[in-house]
Amino acid sequence: MPDPLKDHRALLDIAHKLAKPLRVSDGAGFKLKDWDPADTGGLGAEEKPLSKDLLQQGILVLSELQQRLYSQDCWAVLLIFQAMDAAGKDGAIRHVMSGIDPAGCQVFSFKAPSAEELDHDYMWRCMRNMPERGRIGIFNRSYYEEVLIVKVHQHLLQQQKLPAGLVTDNLWHERYEDIRHIERYLSRNGVLIRKFFLNVSKAEQKKRFLERLDNPDKHWKFSAADAAERDHWDHYMAAYQDMIRNTATDYAPWYVVPADNKWFTRIAVASVILDSLTGLDLHYPELDEVRKSELRKAREALQRKE
Amino acid sequence: MPDPLKDHRALLDIAHKLAKPLRVSDGAGFKLKDWDPADTGGLGAEEKPLSKDLLQQGILVLSELQQRLYSQDCWAVLLIFQAMDAAGKDGAIRHVMSGIDPAGCQVFSFKAPSAEELDHDYMWRCMRNMPERGRIGIFNRSYYEEVLIVKVHQHLLQQQKLPAGLVTDNLWHERYEDIRHIERYLSRNGVLIRKFFLNVSKAEQKKRFLERLDNPDKHWKFSAADAAERDHWDHYMAAYQDMIRNTATDYAPWYVVPADNKWFTRIAVASVILDSLTGLDLHYPELDEVRKSELRKAREALQRKE
Repeated sequence: MPDPLKDHRALLDIAHKLAKPLRVSDGAGFKLKDWDPADTGGLGAEEKPLSKDLLQQGILVLSELQQRLYSQDCWAVLLIFQAMDAAGKDGAIRHVMSGIDPAGCQVFSFKAPSAEELDHDYMWRCMRNMPERGRIGIFNRSYYEEVLIVKVHQHLLQQQKLPAGLVTDNLWHERYEDIRHIERYLSRNGVLIRKFFLNVSKAEQKKRFLERLDNPDKHWKFSAADAAERDHWDHYMAAYQDMIRNTATDYAPWYVVPADNKWFTRIAVASVILDSLTGLDLHYPELDEVRKSELRKAREALQRKE
Repeated sequence: MPDPLKDHRALLDIAHKLAKPLRVSDGAGFKLKDWDPADTGGLGAEEKPLSKDLLQQGILVLSELQQRLYSQDCWAVLLIFQAMDAAGKDGAIRHVMSGIDPAGCQVFSFKAPSAEELDHDYMWRCMRNMPERGRIGIFNRSYYEEVLIVKVHQHLLQQQKLPAGLVTDNLWHERYEDIRHIERYLSRNGVLIRKFFLNVSKAEQKKRFLERLDNPDKHWKFSAADAAERDHWDHYMAAYQDMIRNTATDYAPWYVVPADNKWFTRIAVASVILDSLTGLDLHYPELDEVRKSELRKAREALQRKE
C-alpha cells in the first residue's frame, strides 16, 4: 500500500524548514522586537503562486493526517491562536483548516466572558471545550487573554470576583506558572499543544482596519472598540513578550508567525501544523489477534445471510 | 459589486431540481418502499465526472453562503443525519462540508448515551449542542435514535430510568409529538432544520461491510455489533418509516436521500443544503445611520494617529 506521507516527503521537508525558525520552546530572553512582522521566511513575493500550490498540497496531506489521528483515537491536538485584531487569525483558520473533515475539527472563539463564565476559574470555559482524543481543537483566543487584555486593562480583574487576599503583586507570575503546569498536565494526557502568536505590525493593522471600513462586505468585521485598543499597543506588545517568555515550553511551544503578509502567515501556520502532526507518527490502527479473529467471524456471519 | 450567487444561478437551479423530489414535508401516507435507494435523480453513471464538478462548485457557493450566515449572525442551521450503518453519513459530511470554514460549522456525533446523559431527558445532550446563531450545526445521529434504535431494542428504554407510570403504549407517539413541538419551537427561534435519511439498501450495506473487512485502512471502521443489527433490518425500516410519517413537517422536513451510489448521495446532500440556505436570503449586514456615523468617526480617529 502506498504511503501518502512518503509521496509528500519534499513537502514535509519544506514545512519543517519553515516551521523551525518560528518556534520558541524556551522563552528565556525572548525579545519581540527581534521578530520582524514582515518576514517571509526567505520566500520572495514572486513565490506567492508557488506558496498557494504548497498550501493546497499541504491541506491534502493535513486531511490525510487528520483521518489517521481520528482513526487512532489516541492523541488530541490543541491549536491556540492569539494576536492583535486584524492580524489574520480568522483567515488563517479558514484557509488552513477548510478542507479538513469538520467532524474531526472544532473551533471555539472565546469572547468577553459571560456572567456564568466569570463565576468560575478562568480556565473553566476552555477546559470544558478541550478537543476529544482523535480531534483537532482550535482556540481562537483562549485563557491567554487572562495575561493579555486583563493585564493591559487591570480593572477587568475586578469582574473576576477573586477573594481579595489572592490578588497580589505576584498574580501574573502565578498565572504563567499555573498555565505552564496545566499545559504540562494536558500534554501528559496526550494533548499535543501548539500555540500561535500572529505577529502583525501596528502600521499593517491600521491598513487592514481602513480596508474593512472601505469594503461594505467587511463593515461587520469592524469594531470601534478594537480600533481603540491601538492606544494600548505598546502595553500589549509588552504583555505578549512576557507571555511568551513565561509560557514557551518544549511541550507547548509558541510559534511567532510573521503576519504582515497573509499569504505567508497561512503557509507558515499550515507548515507548523503539518510538521507537528508528522512528528506524532500517526497511522491507522493495527489489528491484534483477538480483533483479527473477530473480523474473520464477522465476515463469515455476513456472508452466511442475505 | 458582483453577486456571487447570481453568477451561480444555473447551479442553484440544478440544486433546487435535485432537492425537491427528495423532500418530505408531510409524512401522511409515506411509504419507504416507494423510495429507491439506487435512484440517481435522472443522472446517469456517465454524469459522475460532471457531478464531481458540480459538487466542487457547490461547495464554493456553500462557503460564500456560510460566510453571509456568519456575518448576519441571525439564523442558525441544524442538519440532522440519520441512517443505517455504512450508508455514508460520515463521507457525505466530510465531502460536502470540507471546504466550509470550520469556525462556522460544528459536527456532533451522538453515540450510546453516557451515564450522565441517561440521567437527563433524552433531548438534553442534543439541546446543549445546538448551533449558535450564524453557525451550521451537524448532528451525526441525534434524538431521533430515541424512536429508532430504542424502538427496535426496547430494553434500552429501561436504562432511561423513566418513572414507570410514564411508559405507556402511547410512548412512541408522545415522542413523535414532543419532537415535532420542540422542532417547531426551535424553528420559531431562527433555527433552520433540515433532516436527512440516507436510504441504503440491505445488499449495498453488505457490500460496504465486506469492503471494510477487505481494506486494512478501513478495519477500524468495522464493528461486529453494527453488522449484527442487520438481523433487525425490517424492524429498522418500519421505524424509519414511522419516524418520517410522524415528524416530517414544513418547518423541519425530511429528505430521503438515495444512498446506494455515494457520488449521488453527496451531490444530493449538497443540493439540499444549497437550496435551503438560498431560501434564507442571506446577505452581509447593512448599515443603519448610527453605525454609519460610528464608522465615519472611527475612520477619522484611525487616520489622526500613528
